[in-house]
Amino acid sequence: MNTICAISTPYGSGGIAVIRVSGEDAIAIVDTLFRGRKSLAEAAAYTVHYGEIVKGENGKVKGEKYEVLDQVLASVFRAPHSFTGEDVVEIACHGSMYIQQTLLQWLVDAGCQLAKAGEFTQRAFLNGKMDLTEAEAVADLIAAQTKAEKDLALSQLRGGISNELAALRERLLTFTSLIELELDFADHEELEFADRTQLNALANEIDSTIGALVSSFKTGNAIKQGIPVAIIGAPNVGKSTLLNALLGEERAIVSDIQGTTRDTIEDTLVLGGMLFRFIDTAGMRVTNDTIENLGIERSRQAAQRAAIIIHLQDPTQDASDILSSLPDIQEKKIIHVFNKADILPSFTPPENAIYISAKNGEVGSVKEQLISFAKEQFNTRNAVTISNTRHYESLVRAQEAIHRVQDGLSMQISGEFLSMDLQDCLTALGEITGQITSQEVLNNIFSKFCIGK
Amino acid sequence: MNTICAISTPYGSGGIAVIRVSGEDAIAIVDTLFRGRKSLAEAAAYTVHYGEIVKGENGKVKGEKYEVLDQVLASVFRAPHSFTGEDVVEIACHGSMYIQQTLLQWLVDAGCQLAKAGEFTQRAFLNGKMDLTEAEAVADLIAAQTKAEKDLALSQLRGGISNELAALRERLLTFTSLIELELDFADHEELEFADRTQLNALANEIDSTIGALVSSFKTGNAIKQGIPVAIIGAPNVGKSTLLNALLGEERAIVSDIQGTTRDTIEDTLVLGGMLFRFIDTAGMRVTNDTIENLGIERSRQAAQRAAIIIHLQDPTQDASDILSSLPDIQEKKIIHVFNKADILPSFTPPENAIYISAKNGEVGSVKEQLISFAKEQFNTRNAVTISNTRHYESLVRAQEAIHRVQDGLSMQISGEFLSMDLQDCLTALGEITGQITSQEVLNNIFSKFCIGK
Repeated sequence: MNTICAISTPYGSGGIAVIRVSGEDAIAIVDTLFRGRKSLAEAAAYTVHYGEIVKGENGKVKGEKYEVLDQVLASVFRAPHSFTGEDVVEIACHGSMYIQQTLLQWLVDAGCQLAKAGEFTQRAFLNGKMDLTEAEAVADLIAAQTKAEKDLALSQLRGGISNELAALRERLLTFTSLIELELDFADHEELEFADRTQLNALANEIDSTIGALVSSFKTGNAIKQGIPVAIIGAPNVGKSTLLNALLGEERAIVSDIQGTTRDTIEDTLVLGGMLFRFIDTAGMRVTNDTIENLGIERSRQAAQRAAIIIHLQDPTQDASDILSSLPDIQEKKIIHVFNKADILPSFTPPENAIYISAKNGEVGSVKEQLISFAKEQFNTRNAVTISNTRHYESLVRAQEAIHRVQDGLSMQISGEFLSMDLQDCLTALGEITGQITSQEVLNNIFSKFCIGK
Repeated sequence: MNTICAISTPYGSGGIAVIRVSGEDAIAIVDTLFRGRKSLAEAAAYTVHYGEIVKGENGKVKGEKYEVLDQVLASVFRAPHSFTGEDVVEIACHGSMYIQQTLLQWLVDAGCQLAKAGEFTQRAFLNGKMDLTEAEAVADLIAAQTKAEKDLALSQLRGGISNELAALRERLLTFTSLIELELDFADHEELEFADRTQLNALANEIDSTIGALVSSFKTGNAIKQGIPVAIIGAPNVGKSTLLNALLGEERAIVSDIQGTTRDTIEDTLVLGGMLFRFIDTAGMRVTNDTIENLGIERSRQAAQRAAIIIHLQDPTQDASDILSSLPDIQEKKIIHVFNKADILPSFTPPENAIYISAKNGEVGSVKEQLISFAKEQFNTRNAVTISNTRHYESLVRAQEAIHRVQDGLSMQISGEFLSMDLQDCLTALGEITGQITSQEVLNNIFSKFCIGK
C-alpha cells in the first residue's frame, strides 16, 4: 500500500493542527523532513517526539542549507497497532493555514499521496481493524450533533450490530454448507446432513433478531435525521409563531393573514440531547385556493411522516375535526396545545393540554413533553439500533430471504431451493458487516467521509 | 496553578480534534475520565495511550454505570518538559462538535477551568519556557499566511530577537550596577567603578544594534501587513482594470468614465511567498470636482505609504508630471507600466518599461518585477527582523534612552543622570523580552491569541 497523508483536524487556523501519515513508508518519509533528538525510525511505538520540520535545498535530504517550516510533535504508531493497521505518524504542527498546507505539500514531495475522503478508515477496514458497520460508525460519530447520535454511533463503533449479526450468520453458514453438501449427494435423497428442525429454529431466531433491527431503524433514523414533529392546526392559530418561539428565531414568516404559510417549513432543534425536526404546516381548512390546497395536502403528508403531532388550537374555536381528518393518527403522540392564552386570560384549557402564548415566546411545557415522549419512545439504551439506510435495506433483504427459508421449510421444499434462499440471506447479512462487498459499495461508503479520517 | 483545558484545534468538525489540559492536576483529572489499559498516572512522559472517555453516573468517579463519550488517544507530557512547563495531557478525540464540547464540559466538571485566550502560551512564558518575544511569535506563527510571515515568526520563536538583545542588556546591566555603586559613594567624587570609555563603546554597540532592529520594522511590518504597492496614474489609464487583473477577480468597479475610482481600494495577494497589499487610487488630474479632489489627495497619501509604485500610463499620453508631483518619490521602487497595448499594436514602450493589456488580463512581467524587488528589499534571511509594533515602540524608547546616555557621556554628566537614562534603556529592552513587564501588558498580549494555544 502506498503511503497517504491528510490534514485530520477541522479546516481552518487554530492553535494546533494534526497531519496524519499512514502506510508502509510513513515513518521513513516523515523522517526525511523531521529533525528531532533521534530519528523516528528508532522511536518506539506510542511515543511522542519534539522536533522541527526541515527541508534541504536539494529536496528530500537534509542538507546544510535548509528551511525550517515549524516546530512540531510527531507521534509514532507501528503496524498493526494503529488506527489503520499500518505504520502511522501523526504530526501536530502550529495551526496556521500556511504551515498546514506547506507541510502537506512537503510530504507529497517526499513521496506521500494525498489521502482520499475516508481513506484512513477504509484502510482500517481493509486491514481487518474494523468491519464495515464500525467503519461507517466513525463517519456517524464525527457528524454527531447530539448525545443520542453519539451514543448510537459509538455503540456501532464498538461492534453493536456486528456482534448481533456475526454469530447468527456464522451458524447460518454452517447449515448452508451442510445443505450444499446434501446437494453433492443428490442421488441419495434420503441423506439430510442439516437437521431441518434445528434449521427452522435458527431461521426463527434470525427472523426475530433481524425484525427487531429493522424496526429499530425508525428510531435510529429519527435520531440521526431528527425526530419529526408536525405542527398542525386551523389557519391563523399561530403555528408559525410557535415554530419561531421553539427555535428562538424568526424562521417562518408570520402574519395575521390566513394562509401565510404554504410550503412546509422544517428546522431542527436539540432538546434534551436529542435532535427534533419541526415541520410547520399550512393551516387546515376548506378553501378553493389552489395553492393553499396544495399546501394543506402537504400538511397531511407531514403529519403522516411525523412521530409527534403538536395540535395547535385556538381555545375559542372547535378544532376536533382536524385531527380526525389525518391518516394513521393513532400511532402518533399527539400534544394538545392551546395558543393565544395571553388574549384570553380567563380561559382554562382541558386537562393534559398545554396553555401557551407563542407570540410572547411562552411555550409552556411543550419542550418537556417532547423530551419525555422522545426519551420513552426513542430509547436506545438497551437494544442495538440501526440508523444507516444501507444497513436497513440489506436487513430487509435478509428478512425476505429468511422468510422464504421459513416458508420453504414448512413446505418441505428441496435443499436446492433452500440453499438459494439461504445464500441470499447470507449475502445480505455479509454486506452489512462488509464480509461480502464490492469496490463500488466501498467507494460509495467512504466517499461520504471527510478527508483526513 | 489551577488546571486549564481548551480545544486546541481549529473550530469545527473534522476527523480528529485535540483538547489540551495543562496544570498540576492535569493527569489526575484526565484519569478520572480515561479508561485505558493502565492509568495515565503510571504513563511515562511522551507516550500515547488508547482508551475511552467515560463518566460514571455519580460524577467524576468511574462507577459501574457509566456513559462512554468517545474512543481517544491521550498523550502525556510531564513538567517541566512540556509546552507550558506543566503536566500536560493532550486528548485526540473524534472531531464531532458534540464530542468536543462534551469532553470540555466533562473536564470542567472534573475540576479543570476553561483556558483563556493564549493561556497555555502565557504559562509557558511564566514558567520560563520562552521569553515574551518568543511567546508573541507563537501567535504570529499561527496567523502566518505566507512563507515570509512564517519565516519571520519562526525566527522569533527560535529566539532571534532575544538572542540579539539579551546579551547586550546583560552587559548594560553590569555597567548600570557599577554606576549605581558609584552613587553609594557619592562623597568620593573621584571614584569611577564604571569605565566611561568602555561604557561609551557599549552604548555605541547598543545604538547600532537597536538602530538596525528599528529599521527592520519597516520590512517586518510590510511582511506582516503586506508590502504596500500603489497603482498611480492619470484618469482612465486602467488602474482598476490592472488591480482586477492582478487579483484575478472583479474587485474594483471599472468604467470608461474618468474618475470612477474615488476611495482608495486595497486588497492583498500572495506572490512568491510574500504578501502584497495593492492600493488602487483615483486618477491624478486637475479637476474642480470636490469629491474627486479628495480622492486625488488620498492617492498622494497612498503613494507616500507605498514601498512600490506602479506608474500606469497610456502610451499616447505624456504622464511625466504625475510622478514629479508625488512626495518622497526617490525612496520608492517605481515600476513603469504601459497599458492598452492591445489597442496600440505598433507601440514600443521605452526600455525597462512593461507593456501590458490589463483589460485582457495580460500583466506582462509586473508580478515578476514585484517579487524580485521585494526579495531584494525585504530579505530577512540574514538579519533579525522585528514585525511587532510593541517591540518597535520599546526599541524606539530604548534608542532614545541610549542616545541620552551617549550625549551624557560626551558631556561628562554625573553618574546620577547617566543612571536614570541607563535604567530607561534597560526597562525598554526588558519590556521586549518580558524580563520587565506588567500584568496589564501580559493580558493585552495574550488576549490576542486564540483559545487553546
